[in-house]
Amino acid sequence: MPSYNAPVKDMQFVLHNLLKVSSSDIPGYADLEAEFTAAVLEEAGKLTSEVLAPLNAVGDVEGCKLENGVVRTPTGFKAAFDQVREGGWTGLDMPEQYGGQGMPYVMGTAIGEMFSAANQAFTMYQGLTHGAASAILAHGSDEQKDKFLPKMVSCDWTGTMNLTEPHCGTDLGMMRTKAVPQDDGTYKVTGQKIFISAGDHDMADNIIHLVLAKIPGGPEGIKGVSLFIVPKILVDDDGSLGARNGVSVGKIEEKMGIHGNSTCVMNYDEATGYLLGEAHKGMRAMFTMMNEARIGVGMQGMAQADVAFQNALEYAKDRLQGRDVTGVKNPDGPADPLIVHPDIRRSLMDQKSFVEGARAFMLWGASLIDRAHRNKDDSADGLISLMTPVIKGFLTDEGYDMTVKAQQVYGGHGYIEEWGMSQFTRDARIAMIYEGANGVQALDLVGRKLATDAGKHAMAFLELVKTFIKENEGNEALKADFLDPLKAASKDLQTAMMYFMQNGMKNPNNALSGSYDFMHLFGHVCLGLMWAQMAKAAHEALQVGTEDVTFYETKLATGRYYMARRLPATALHLARINTGADTVMALEAANF
Amino acid sequence: MPSYNAPVKDMQFVLHNLLKVSSSDIPGYADLEAEFTAAVLEEAGKLTSEVLAPLNAVGDVEGCKLENGVVRTPTGFKAAFDQVREGGWTGLDMPEQYGGQGMPYVMGTAIGEMFSAANQAFTMYQGLTHGAASAILAHGSDEQKDKFLPKMVSCDWTGTMNLTEPHCGTDLGMMRTKAVPQDDGTYKVTGQKIFISAGDHDMADNIIHLVLAKIPGGPEGIKGVSLFIVPKILVDDDGSLGARNGVSVGKIEEKMGIHGNSTCVMNYDEATGYLLGEAHKGMRAMFTMMNEARIGVGMQGMAQADVAFQNALEYAKDRLQGRDVTGVKNPDGPADPLIVHPDIRRSLMDQKSFVEGARAFMLWGASLIDRAHRNKDDSADGLISLMTPVIKGFLTDEGYDMTVKAQQVYGGHGYIEEWGMSQFTRDARIAMIYEGANGVQALDLVGRKLATDAGKHAMAFLELVKTFIKENEGNEALKADFLDPLKAASKDLQTAMMYFMQNGMKNPNNALSGSYDFMHLFGHVCLGLMWAQMAKAAHEALQVGTEDVTFYETKLATGRYYMARRLPATALHLARINTGADTVMALEAANF
Repeated sequence: MPSYNAPVKDMQFVLHNLLKVSSSDIPGYADLEAEFTAAVLEEAGKLTSEVLAPLNAVGDVEGCKLENGVVRTPTGFKAAFDQVREGGWTGLDMPEQYGGQGMPYVMGTAIGEMFSAANQAFTMYQGLTHGAASAILAHGSDEQKDKFLPKMVSCDWTGTMNLTEPHCGTDLGMMRTKAVPQDDGTYKVTGQKIFISAGDHDMADNIIHLVLAKIPGGPEGIKGVSLFIVPKILVDDDGSLGARNGVSVGKIEEKMGIHGNSTCVMNYDEATGYLLGEAHKGMRAMFTMMNEARIGVGMQGMAQADVAFQNALEYAKDRLQGRDVTGVKNPDGPADPLIVHPDIRRSLMDQKSFVEGARAFMLWGASLIDRAHRNKDDSADGLISLMTPVIKGFLTDEGYDMTVKAQQVYGGHGYIEEWGMSQFTRDARIAMIYEGANGVQALDLVGRKLATDAGKHAMAFLELVKTFIKENEGNEALKADFLDPLKAASKDLQTAMMYFMQNGMKNPNNALSGSYDFMHLFGHVCLGLMWAQMAKAAHEALQVGTEDVTFYETKLATGRYYMARRLPATALHLARINTGADTVMALEAANF
Repeated sequence: MPSYNAPVKDMQFVLHNLLKVSSSDIPGYADLEAEFTAAVLEEAGKLTSEVLAPLNAVGDVEGCKLENGVVRTPTGFKAAFDQVREGGWTGLDMPEQYGGQGMPYVMGTAIGEMFSAANQAFTMYQGLTHGAASAILAHGSDEQKDKFLPKMVSCDWTGTMNLTEPHCGTDLGMMRTKAVPQDDGTYKVTGQKIFISAGDHDMADNIIHLVLAKIPGGPEGIKGVSLFIVPKILVDDDGSLGARNGVSVGKIEEKMGIHGNSTCVMNYDEATGYLLGEAHKGMRAMFTMMNEARIGVGMQGMAQADVAFQNALEYAKDRLQGRDVTGVKNPDGPADPLIVHPDIRRSLMDQKSFVEGARAFMLWGASLIDRAHRNKDDSADGLISLMTPVIKGFLTDEGYDMTVKAQQVYGGHGYIEEWGMSQFTRDARIAMIYEGANGVQALDLVGRKLATDAGKHAMAFLELVKTFIKENEGNEALKADFLDPLKAASKDLQTAMMYFMQNGMKNPNNALSGSYDFMHLFGHVCLGLMWAQMAKAAHEALQVGTEDVTFYETKLATGRYYMARRLPATALHLARINTGADTVMALEAANF
């Protein structure tokens, strides 16, 4: 069976060598001394590797079952959920006012990665709750916050997001679920929602559904959508649980993966709902959840890549097969370990350089969110908003590919469920789809985010790269291996933006035909930037003097691999973008 | 549920417009008149779409079950197998002497694509039989041929290949299965084999296992391996079935996909076996099966891509979501169909241009096999031998990616098993692994095939491309869209070969670190060549005059897409190859 080792050391490197969190001016960051974060990460590492990871296959094999209208989670899930709750992990970055620990989001993100890597299906129960709580925190009345947040922060009650209906997912303007106002200020919500992750289960006393619905008589389409709080069990004014609400599970979907999470069809039948935020402004409120969720999903992609990589690496070291062509490495054995073979190395280095680059990208992104919220910094907010579709789309596509590569290292055993590598790919696959399929992320990036505030944030990103290159130009240790490739890649990014500006005006399809390639081009430049910055940090550590020379030299070698073998993909993406819409849109739909 | 439409029209285009089979000098091709091949293909199309495709999901859901030592196939499989047998489809390209129809391999390949696309797990039962029969045909004694082939050609008896053992797959020199010679000239075979596709089932009267084993006292390692015929039930001299042999099923593996095929652990306990071919020359005999199987597996990759694409296309035309940014296309509906969106087009065009290019590549490859066998043409043999790892590795990698893209078109529904798109990816995944994992294909290509006969066949391939470009240089309709990109791509291929020659001598890892990229580079050039040739054929058809202008214009537009958006990948592969082994091999295994 696969195992999971929490990457505490690598996270410490990113937090302290790269982001230098404890000397940051972001409120709350001063507390993040290296010893403190190490202690928290070690503790989370223990829980995730010892408790959650062993349940990963259990969840996959058993799945969730709907019995007499109630969803049963796999063996061991409830006990583990209790343990997570008791450890206070569910409210780590939630306000102390509601029972959380008030830590920065960057810490929540690091720990979230561990949880997702160890057991994605399990972690979604609390992940969805976090998202729903964030939406209530941002848009709820004080009364709503007081009533729901303490229980949600502790995960005594969990949460869900209800957007999709059978006939509409991306295009929510077509939704049919209705919310009819009642005299007492509440609403009666009626309709069917599908693909509701953690829609029902047996691990919490109550479930707080956030449901998008239309108030009759409101504006047409997406502008007439409002967001409602619809508890599974109604909550009395004193906070105690009252009557069952008109919410029921239609069925559990049979999915390709994440079997441990109950993906439900939810039926709302005149269920009592409470308007969250303003009427007809539901999408705005939902986007609070969705942006957080998109970043969380990007993390799932890289987290699955990490755990799959860890196991592929162990297998490559253990499995004896063939001989090193440059000379026998294991003369006493019947064959050399797989890891001697260059093509296995290529695969492992692809994985390793992605995972570590993506981890830095995630945590940098999380620090931007902290800066946006805690320093009220609009440029940080603009930048992370621009990069959110990149984090979601690029990291989940690449993350999935890496799980496929990890599975491939196992040869035939990778295809046998017993070995566990198939589950990583099947679980990782959903991340490319939910919270907006990756094509929709690309559309959001090119069709909306690039042009936000007259392109200010995109320019700021390019400026950031340029400044880094300029400031370090004299550093010979960085120049050829890191700065030059980064310069070339960011030039490709800039050229692509120019192409969109010049040709997208004439015909928006010229830009949209290249949107997916642009998302990947952007992602590679982000990881290239991370690797250049990490290389700088590694050199600094080596110069200062360290007992762990190997760690930093390995970091540099891994970065050189990314810059030499992965980053050049930007040129291919640019080449495709530059061909515009002509060949993409050439056929009539009927002639395909 | 997904459906399958056999691509008869496109196959006819490849057979007659591109390969011009009926005017070929290959013996037997003169019979392949357009009307004849159309009739055969139509008939196969009906069988595959109406009988086999509906059983695809049944096989996935039910799987195979081991009950009291006997494997039960899914509901409907046996009746369908009988129908396939009765139609004479199993011996289509087998010699008439043994009950086959003696058609060229190119026809077997076209029909094989349909079978695989409709139901890969089902088709493997006959596919393995075909491979085993081919090995007996090539290496068996007359007595062995007479005894086994008629029943195998008709699939009254099916066949298997037994190579892998728990501790070795790629490195078969380590195998432990023993074959002890007996006084009567037979052998007693003892050992365990794993991953045996179609290892046991209830659809045939007997199963003829081809088993690799070592004769005690023979040479060490791979040079001491021999191949044996080991029937499940012993066959008496009069051809009737006798006693049960010492062959049993240990278990059925739980796999990621191809659930309808029984992947067995096979135990041989002093089972009676008959030496096939010469002692200690087992690998040579097995390679007859394996080369055929590798080409067949490449076909599986493209076949799954085709059926997945067909369904994604239908979904994209039907599903209403969002509006065309350049103007509403479906004003009477609540939204436009998915296919109006450029990013959906990109995905569909990726799929379509791959599938049609790969089909041409497969059938061209099959015609080379026919030329090699029927004309005893060594250059054709050398060329197809060179391209076999490309067909296997490139078409299965790309084919898998295309099934993932097709699944993505469905959004959330793609992840739900009920919709059937997940099965295509899960089934396609195995093709990258079995018959030599794709990394092994890349090794075979760069480490062995490129240098075969002093590089003669690789040079011949480049020459073939150059000649085509030169001969058509004056054709303005082809020049910019097809010939120029093909020229650039084949130059990348040539440069990569030069790099290997110059740097692989110094250190073989410089070549092997780029082997996987080279396999893909080569694959793209092959598909680029196919598209350029198909474009020429389409122009010719349009010039001659046709009632089906749309078909040929669509072909040209699809080809232009491939040349503009897919073929430029060669530059990225070359860029990676040119970095050699330095970054790939930089880390000590312990420091990963």
